[in-house]
Amino acid sequence: MTTWCNGHFAEQLMLAPNERGLMLGDGIFETIAVRHGKPIWLEDHLVRLETSAADLGLPCDMATIRQGLEAVLQQSAAAAEVLRLTLTRGPTPRGLAVDGANPSLFITLNPFELSKLPSSVRLATSSIRRNPTSPASNHKTLSYIDAIAAAREVATRADDALLLNTGGMVACTTIANIFALKGNHLITPSRDQGILFGMARARLIAGVAQLSLVIEERQMAPEELYAADAIFLTNSLRLATRVASLDGKSCGTRDFTFINTYLEETFT
Amino acid sequence: MTTWCNGHFAEQLMLAPNERGLMLGDGIFETIAVRHGKPIWLEDHLVRLETSAADLGLPCDMATIRQGLEAVLQQSAAAAEVLRLTLTRGPTPRGLAVDGANPSLFITLNPFELSKLPSSVRLATSSIRRNPTSPASNHKTLSYIDAIAAAREVATRADDALLLNTGGMVACTTIANIFALKGNHLITPSRDQGILFGMARARLIAGVAQLSLVIEERQMAPEELYAADAIFLTNSLRLATRVASLDGKSCGTRDFTFINTYLEETFT
Repeated sequence: MTTWCNGHFAEQLMLAPNERGLMLGDGIFETIAVRHGKPIWLEDHLVRLETSAADLGLPCDMATIRQGLEAVLQQSAAAAEVLRLTLTRGPTPRGLAVDGANPSLFITLNPFELSKLPSSVRLATSSIRRNPTSPASNHKTLSYIDAIAAAREVATRADDALLLNTGGMVACTTIANIFALKGNHLITPSRDQGILFGMARARLIAGVAQLSLVIEERQMAPEELYAADAIFLTNSLRLATRVASLDGKSCGTRDFTFINTYLEETFT
Repeated sequence: MTTWCNGHFAEQLMLAPNERGLMLGDGIFETIAVRHGKPIWLEDHLVRLETSAADLGLPCDMATIRQGLEAVLQQSAAAAEVLRLTLTRGPTPRGLAVDGANPSLFITLNPFELSKLPSSVRLATSSIRRNPTSPASNHKTLSYIDAIAAAREVATRADDALLLNTGGMVACTTIANIFALKGNHLITPSRDQGILFGMARARLIAGVAQLSLVIEERQMAPEELYAADAIFLTNSLRLATRVASLDGKSCGTRDFTFINTYLEETFT
């Protein structure tokens, strides 16, 4: 594991005792696939980071971030790795006020074992709902406790938790966006449904014409997941992964290799 | 500032690069008032910590925590201080799975200036809602980004944000519970409304008979806040603080000194 902490390589992270990333989950992150030292979809990840930072009023110096990324990526030592970029608001006096923050930047690079990726996952519906009004839903923030608790809630009976939103509609899972393939239609919850704006999701939506698919970004009832030809999850590391079952009931089995083929083509 | 990091006094916090408290807001905390070296409502705070830890599956060794508290409180150096106890799930491999976690414990002790406490606050309603299904609503977790964003949203026009829940009912503010005093009735949102289970709130509810008040813990419509004789906020550090106005409209002005007198009596 390679670790970068505020401008230097380090074995451990050194933080001020009032570092808000730790004390208040006040920060954002990106998880980026790396292949042979090359970060995949890097510019899109950095645009999302910068957009989230602006929305949360988090100072974000892209030059410093690119410098850190470059230094860390020079340490790349495996065919497949995962890079995590964490930007926090840094230390401030006690309380929630954000004035005078001086952001912290942490970057880690870890080997990533592609052979260990699951070929399909079982989902179970969590009792924890995604809240569309929450910045924790719409940004990749450090405030991840809902997803952790949801994953733990279903861990004995499933591989990941399906999260509905507070309106009872489909949102996403703890680590991925969700798609239903039905005929030549690709259905996925729209951005107002309490979802994370995933990179693989965006890539796939941008590519539907090329794939001869019609995209439906909209509100999605849980029952629709059983009626589809196939359900799959997307994220930056796993690309598209089949959902074999939801709450113990099997989902459609149609082949969607062409989705992953397409996503992998965007790597180059 | 006195800082305790995993068994030792420290100037800075030393963390593993995969410390979940920082990476995923995966932890809980308590903020405890200290008067002349004595932590106020300590046992109640520790019960809440232990209850939250159990609910989140966070290992919580009370002996270690008490040891740390004792060491830090021996450094007490002011009449009024604030102690913060932070328990995280510690480092784990990448991903959300909680197996094999080895918790981290951080404690800080800071001077607290009672003279700087506001005598009243202006509230403004945030667009960010409290989600009653979320562990971040019902526990004092490190995943605090919603409260930070809500405070920031209203900062130019108010001192704190009123948070409604996803059902549109009153929940709390970013740092406090809320009460309405009307005649001899004390009205506050019930525990199912997406509120934090505050210590001052619990103390006050336990004391209503002694105060000749009738408590109503229930769903509470925002309009009720204008109809009350007085609205006040409670937390462990500020006790009861008047709400002068909500969204620019004045609230009731009845005196409630007796509430703070009562809460202060429970300090001894």
